[in-house]
Amino acid sequence: MGRRGKAAALKLAAVSSEQKNRALNAMADALEKNQARIIAENEKDMTKAKADGLSAAMLDRLKLDAKRVSAMAEGIRSVAKLADPVGEHIRDWTRPNGLRIEKVRVPLGLVGIIYESRPNVTADSASLCLKAGNACLLRGGSESLHSNLAIATVMSNAVKSAGLPEHAIQLVPITDRAAVMEMAGMDKYLACIVPRGGKGLISAVMENATVPVIKHLDGICHVFVDKDADLGMAEKIVINAKCQRPGVCNAMETLLIHQDVAPKFLPLIAKNLIDHKVELRLDPKSESMLKGNGSRLKSPLLRKAKEADWTTEYLDLILSVRVVDSLDQAIEHINHYGSAHSDSIVTKNDESATRFLREVDSATVYHNASTRFTDGAEFGMGAEIGISTDRIHARGPMALEELTTYKYLIHGSGQVRE
Amino acid sequence: MGRRGKAAALKLAAVSSEQKNRALNAMADALEKNQARIIAENEKDMTKAKADGLSAAMLDRLKLDAKRVSAMAEGIRSVAKLADPVGEHIRDWTRPNGLRIEKVRVPLGLVGIIYESRPNVTADSASLCLKAGNACLLRGGSESLHSNLAIATVMSNAVKSAGLPEHAIQLVPITDRAAVMEMAGMDKYLACIVPRGGKGLISAVMENATVPVIKHLDGICHVFVDKDADLGMAEKIVINAKCQRPGVCNAMETLLIHQDVAPKFLPLIAKNLIDHKVELRLDPKSESMLKGNGSRLKSPLLRKAKEADWTTEYLDLILSVRVVDSLDQAIEHINHYGSAHSDSIVTKNDESATRFLREVDSATVYHNASTRFTDGAEFGMGAEIGISTDRIHARGPMALEELTTYKYLIHGSGQVRE
Repeated sequence: MGRRGKAAALKLAAVSSEQKNRALNAMADALEKNQARIIAENEKDMTKAKADGLSAAMLDRLKLDAKRVSAMAEGIRSVAKLADPVGEHIRDWTRPNGLRIEKVRVPLGLVGIIYESRPNVTADSASLCLKAGNACLLRGGSESLHSNLAIATVMSNAVKSAGLPEHAIQLVPITDRAAVMEMAGMDKYLACIVPRGGKGLISAVMENATVPVIKHLDGICHVFVDKDADLGMAEKIVINAKCQRPGVCNAMETLLIHQDVAPKFLPLIAKNLIDHKVELRLDPKSESMLKGNGSRLKSPLLRKAKEADWTTEYLDLILSVRVVDSLDQAIEHINHYGSAHSDSIVTKNDESATRFLREVDSATVYHNASTRFTDGAEFGMGAEIGISTDRIHARGPMALEELTTYKYLIHGSGQVRE
Repeated sequence: MGRRGKAAALKLAAVSSEQKNRALNAMADALEKNQARIIAENEKDMTKAKADGLSAAMLDRLKLDAKRVSAMAEGIRSVAKLADPVGEHIRDWTRPNGLRIEKVRVPLGLVGIIYESRPNVTADSASLCLKAGNACLLRGGSESLHSNLAIATVMSNAVKSAGLPEHAIQLVPITDRAAVMEMAGMDKYLACIVPRGGKGLISAVMENATVPVIKHLDGICHVFVDKDADLGMAEKIVINAKCQRPGVCNAMETLLIHQDVAPKFLPLIAKNLIDHKVELRLDPKSESMLKGNGSRLKSPLLRKAKEADWTTEYLDLILSVRVVDSLDQAIEHINHYGSAHSDSIVTKNDESATRFLREVDSATVYHNASTRFTDGAEFGMGAEIGISTDRIHARGPMALEELTTYKYLIHGSGQVRE
């Protein structure tokens, strides 16, 4: 599969945007045309998942119906409409010896994607890879094997019928851990592996990979309410960052409040969060402010924070809260305990905002906005493979451009090195 | 060391270009001022190396004298003069919801560099890392431990005296393989590792690393002499690519000749190469052309190529030679056997050149120039950490820009996600 995929990637690299878009639209059409077959295969996964006692939430994520198949097809059509990053002229310069050096954007090659449960990832990943001129080797979770195989086969046939190499899209039909480890060692064929999924899976890939890995790890995201914050705005942002969709990596996990505004802001936001059924894990200062003499707020949702809370990605209606004595302490806390994903300051003070944006060492740093915007579509990139927590190659939302690399074309007239 | 290095990196990220340049010039001055001490420490390495029976070439690479220490200092001064990549405004756009997204260039963080033998690499690597706002954790070879420690200590003291964190430059004083393996697992602290050295070392790092690795592997570089080549130019380029400095990664290892010009070009270039003491490993076609009835060329330097020759980096006066029947076969050969490093076509035919540049899947692809130009300084990047053979993050010459990453600064006015 590696050999075939790499051969397909070499061919895809030289294909025009029009040809790739034709193939993408053919993939979308084919998914809709083969809806019944895909849903029938999905039924097999659903039956097994029910027998295995998967949760209602898991079953919902797994399930495909006509509407969801159409949504996948629409997703692919929207990828076809995105600008093609391949061939972009990045830079051009001429050396004193007359050599003209062009730096141009080219595909990565064969990209491995390892993911879990949701079958629509199969269509999303394959279409983004193809648009960026890459072949892909997909390895989905065992729960969705029948669905994934059906989707991948339909897409690969469509790619072939559109005149492009059918091995541009391949799905590994083996879902045990050994298959992942095998992929992790295929440095001869794979340009990189993107693991999307639980920490266990990603750690296993990291520890065993000779192929470069672009990790999609956890988001310990913070909102810092500065002493100069507009407290109304702060309340809206905090509630949005925690409650709008708590199970995703760009949701806030820790709230930091400047001590100058904490006496006013903390009781207010605590009540609002509790109304949203958020459990609060409080540092000693915030605890004493909320439970102390002055305050009347009482709730079983008020708990003490432990050290481990500051590094925990709850992905749930739980929030750790700390009162800090300064902007410096807020920045220090975030750089020490955070995961360098997404962090936000709420302040009317431009100087504090500038320092926060510069000194917080995270992929995306916000001033007066919710952390929830860290997302390929929200960034205007059209779609995303995921959010990279690595520092090299791709940082933050990973979309079409991040699925490419570059090469140098050097135009000479007989130059040799002295 | 990892913890200290990461803390130093966080501080360095916010430091101005002026401060960094001051520290670099202080490092250069300090090396010259402490010349005697550095040379005395180098003497210890030289004594041990002689006792261990190292080759004359190895001893020469290891040796430091006043001139070489000055050359190191000059190298650092020239890095101080390069443009600072940090803070570069890469892109800026505003979303329909009013969020303004800025993409800016920032340092990588703590960079691990693993290298062998030559002590000047200590100064080169540390100065490039510092200029790009990175702290570095250096691990040199055992032969040069005393020299490296002296150089690193002098530089780290100079950095401190210039008011920057002294742990910006740290050298691991342990040179066994276990220290390398320890570094390879420090993903909590290291942004990436750049291994420069033999294949054994690099493979060991790759296999054990959880830290992202930017490999500097082998260069199986090709020159293809097309049917429409200017044969005089081809001769100059071939001789330069093979003979000017055969022991480096951008030297040619395989010569491909179009069959239409081979009868004329091959005897000519073979004689010239043999005059340069190059051993030729010939495919059947080129062998029959050279040894066949018509040719009078006889030399013990003419051998038969084996399959393994096409994937061997000789780093020596040895060249494998193949006569191909077409441009397509040349491209196929390079993509199949090459290492995607540097490859060149010699031709007057622009259409063939365009196809070669586009379809050869290598980091640097040349038209009418020697492969020997793949080099940070030759590219006008000022200096380089090395030549990356990876496809992600850094491809080809790795210099200041490739020692950085980016982050997103997002300016809002209270936006929350719907």
